[in-house]
This record gives sequence, C-alpha cells and structure tokens, in this order.
Amino acid sequence: MSRRAGLDAADLVRGVLGRDRSVLGRAITLLESDHPGDQQTAEELLLSLLPYSGKSHRIGVSGVPGAGKSTLIETLGKNLTSSGHRVAVLAVDPTSSVSGGSVLGDKTRMTRLATDPDAFIRPTPSGGSTGGVARRTHEAIVVCEAAGFDVIFVETMGVGQSEAAVAQMVDFLLVLVLAGAGDELQGIKRGILEHADMLVVNKADGENESRAERASREYQSAWRILRPPRADWDPVVLTCSAINNRGLDALWARIEESRARRLASGELDSRRQKQRLHWTWAIAEAELSRDFRNDEAVRQRLRELDADLAAGKVTPATVARSLIAVFRQQR
Amino acid sequence: MSRRAGLDAADLVRGVLGRDRSVLGRAITLLESDHPGDQQTAEELLLSLLPYSGKSHRIGVSGVPGAGKSTLIETLGKNLTSSGHRVAVLAVDPTSSVSGGSVLGDKTRMTRLATDPDAFIRPTPSGGSTGGVARRTHEAIVVCEAAGFDVIFVETMGVGQSEAAVAQMVDFLLVLVLAGAGDELQGIKRGILEHADMLVVNKADGENESRAERASREYQSAWRILRPPRADWDPVVLTCSAINNRGLDALWARIEESRARRLASGELDSRRQKQRLHWTWAIAEAELSRDFRNDEAVRQRLRELDADLAAGKVTPATVARSLIAVFRQQR
Repeated sequence: MSRRAGLDAADLVRGVLGRDRSVLGRAITLLESDHPGDQQTAEELLLSLLPYSGKSHRIGVSGVPGAGKSTLIETLGKNLTSSGHRVAVLAVDPTSSVSGGSVLGDKTRMTRLATDPDAFIRPTPSGGSTGGVARRTHEAIVVCEAAGFDVIFVETMGVGQSEAAVAQMVDFLLVLVLAGAGDELQGIKRGILEHADMLVVNKADGENESRAERASREYQSAWRILRPPRADWDPVVLTCSAINNRGLDALWARIEESRARRLASGELDSRRQKQRLHWTWAIAEAELSRDFRNDEAVRQRLRELDADLAAGKVTPATVARSLIAVFRQQR
Repeated sequence: MSRRAGLDAADLVRGVLGRDRSVLGRAITLLESDHPGDQQTAEELLLSLLPYSGKSHRIGVSGVPGAGKSTLIETLGKNLTSSGHRVAVLAVDPTSSVSGGSVLGDKTRMTRLATDPDAFIRPTPSGGSTGGVARRTHEAIVVCEAAGFDVIFVETMGVGQSEAAVAQMVDFLLVLVLAGAGDELQGIKRGILEHADMLVVNKADGENESRAERASREYQSAWRILRPPRADWDPVVLTCSAINNRGLDALWARIEESRARRLASGELDSRRQKQRLHWTWAIAEAELSRDFRNDEAVRQRLRELDADLAAGKVTPATVARSLIAVFRQQR
C-alpha cells in the first residue's frame, strides 16, 4: 500500500489501464520514489502492466539546448495526434544538482501539446543521477504504453551519459543538430555517431535555409565515412523547419520505414531483448553499489583506514580491495 | 614480478625515481594492464611511489575537438620548461571502441613538447571505458610526480563523463571554448559550469580577435549568473592566442594565484583528500561490479530467468534483485 494518495497497486493498475491521466501521473511519481515501501508497490504495478506494454513506437530525441527539440516534438506530436495517434513525452535529464535547474527554463514548453487530450507530457524529474532518472524513465515507458500511448518520445539534452542511456530504451534515436558556422565535423560527437539513427538539421527556415542544406550535406558525407556500417538501417540526414511544420511528414515517413524494416527482420525484437538485459544489469549494479555504500561494516572499515589514506600511506585501490573483502564476508 | 620486460616493482621504482623516461613509460603501461599479475605489481609500485607524490600542480584541460587544447598545452608547456618546470601530459579519453580512433588524429600532436627533455607526453590509451581509463590516469599522476614532474596537464575532450572524472583528479580545471556565431550561452554545458575554474576563449588572433573578446564578455556575464558561488575561487574568463603565445603568461599567473590561495586556505589539501575518497569508492564499485558480472552463480540464475524476461513476464528490476540475492548468498 503506497502512502501516496492512498492508492494501492491495484488502484493504480485500474487507473492506468482506464487511461486516467491523473492516475498515470501518480504512477510515474511512484516509480520515481526512493521510499522502500513505494518500491514494493512500484514493482507490483510494473508486473501487472507488463502484459499491456511493448506496443508503442519509442523514439529518442536528442540535441543541445537551442537545437529546437521541444518545437520539433510539439509540432510532430500535434501532427500525430491529428492523425489518430496518442503521444507521450518523457525526459531523462535530471535538473542539475548544482545549478538547480536547466539553463533554458522549461515551464512554458509545449503548451499546445500539453493541452491536447491525446498527449501526455511528463516534466523533467528534479535531482538524482542521470543513471537513476534513466532507469525510472525506462519504467515510465511501460506505464505509458499500458495507458494506451502508441508513440513515446524520450527527450534528452545529449550531454553526459544521457544519450547512451536513451539509446538503451528507444527503438529509434533522432539527433537534432544546428547548422553552425564552418566546420560541421567538429560538432559531431562520438556518442552521436555510435547511437543515432537519424540526424536532423532543424531551423531550415528563412535566411538559414541554404546554410542548413549545406550543413546537411556536410554531415551526410562525414557520417558516411565515420559511422560504422549497420545492416539494418542506413544513417539518414534530413533538414526541417519544425516551427513552420516543414519537412516533418518526410521525417516521420523515414522513421516509420525504419520501424517496418526492423519489425520484418526481427531486429526490433532483438534490440528490445538486449535492452531488457542491459537494464537488468544496470539496476542490479546500482542496487549492489547502494548496498555497498550503505553497509555499516564497510563504512566502519573506511573510518579505520581514513587516516592512512589521507596521509598517503595507502592507495585508493588498496583501501577499495579491503572494503570489498569486508562487504563480501557478510551474508 | 611483471612479465612485461622482466622488470619487477623494485626495478620500476628505481627507474621512475631516477627519472628514466623509458621506465616511466613502462610503469604507466603496467598500470593500464588488466592482467591479474600485473595488478599486484602495479599496487606495489604505487605504494612505493606514494611518498614521493603529491607535490605537482595538476591542471585539467578540457574542450571540444578543434578548440586548440594541444596547441595551448604545447605552447604553455614550452614556456614552463623554459622557466625550469618539468611538464607531463596525460589524457583520459579512451579511443572509441566503435569509431576506432579519434575524429582528428593525434599522431602528430605536440611535436615540439614531445622532444623537450623536460617534458613527458603519454598518448591516449586505446580501448576501455572512460571510468577505467580515468582511474589509470589518476594513478599515472602519482608515477609522474615521483619522476619529478611538477606540472601535470590532464587533457580531456570534455565529452561524456570525462570532464567530471578529470575534475576529480586535478587541482584546477581550465576549459577551452570556441567563439561561435551568436548565442554563446548555448555552448555552456552544465558540466562545465559545475567543474571549471577558468574558461579560455582561444584563437583570439587576426580577424577572430574581436569576436573572441565579445564571446569572452558573454561567457563572463553568463557564468556570473549561472554558476553557483564558491568561496575559494571566482570563475575567470580569459582570451588567448595559443598559436601566437599571446595571453598565456597572464593565464598561467591566474592559475598560480588560485593555487597560492587554495594552499593558504587549506582548500587544496581538503580537495585532494576528497578526491582520494572519491577514487576509493569508484575503484571499489568498479571491482565489485566486475566480480558480480563474472560470478558463475549469478550468470546461471540469469540464464534461468532469461526466457521470462524475454517474454515480458518479469521486470528487469525483479531479475536484478534475484541476481543480487544469489551473489550475496556466497562468500
């Protein structure tokens, strides 16, 4: 029984399957909770919803702040709800613990999509590590699918580990890039090369259009050279103007084409299978580390060795080994 | 006894303390080895060298490819060796496992510094994770210090986790930024705000000079607003032209000023103390995870649960809990 709002797992399951948006929001809040009692309820919830999950098209959208991710998701999202889809938007970047918020505030984001009855937008969780938030986002996908959303966007700023984490939970990763001044190659980070299925040069509007087209060609040739070949899908570089809703139909057609191919080849299934294994190990390692760091005997041993460590008489590696030995001596 | 080149820990210690560059190179290679026998020797080596370490000025240099990191380190490094310093250069970014190398090759980097008898440049290790490479780099600092290097530059591309990892091993983090076209704010990543002690707009030369000055002012005002206040040091934004050796003396003076302040306040000691604790936990967690993933009983349990996981009958979190239980039941 969750303390939160007096709803137990069965209530939450009923509400989510009944497409009750407020219950959906509470269910995701429950997943984000660190309270041990909530974790038990969260696990029951997920187990009950698993049979209703897995049928959505999961699409990651990455790109630096200012690349136009919100505008693209909102415009594409509205196109999709207009043609009968139900669209959920999730995020993986926790708000920074130091700066206390995102650089560009996101209070007023996607207002048109937010008020659409066929859309659900979950704001960025505050605090926590990227890894922790990513795990919760992966679980939130299951809940949104059970609530009948058939297109799920997962947004990331593409900094730190978040791009790799998103690649581990989506079927398709779209990366928005800016047409910069000059050497486009420099802007291609390795992470993008390794994970992206599509690069999109957004803001191809007005004076910027020819610059965007040129950038697109440069990215295309760079990507062909630098990217390792993959059997199931060729990297694609497109331009669009999200703010003018130009190029988004073509973009969506390519995303659907890739899905059709990967469904036919079995690649989609095997990718999700690998993702489940990835999250199993990731969750296990995170929980094992937490147990280790909180272990009273481990902390006691560290207190004993602290002075020697400070004095440079022992190395961190030596102390680390000693802590592991203490941890593994217990049951 | 290390298999490599027949040198045992005592030989390596003698060679490093005797400032033999080829032995220094071999000692760092030993630290990078994953062979269990080598790890034993590496630990002996580090323990013997610890008393001779800790006296250098450790400086992180971060920035995207093309920002001019190598040119800055080379020119500043030559200035420093000319005035009697001994300079070592290390790197934390492993070459990418997928793209198989850095985007901009670094075979011909820093040739002037590389041939300087008072400098030592260690090329980027190939393969491995950022975390693993970072740990080895942290240990290589100890070895370089024991070999009498009093200024150590640690270079990072500033992608992924590497910036945070470098911040955990240096006394001062300098971040090179490019004067872009327009909105400089977009280029400031959270990680930079949180970890950098100094932003440097390089390439302030020729036609680019006024643009660099303007960028510097924009960064300065943005940083003042966005960066959390710190008692020990105010963020600084400088411009320089590394290729023309302009602005580097002023830059070095500011770095030394910060060191003097932090030495006087005790902040330098307490920072290094925190770093040793950080590496202790990081190493312990990495080794615990490795033991866990390689554990035969854990792998057997995963094989048993694999079909249910694939069929969506159990969640990754449930399987993870079961794997931890198996791991912790053993001694």
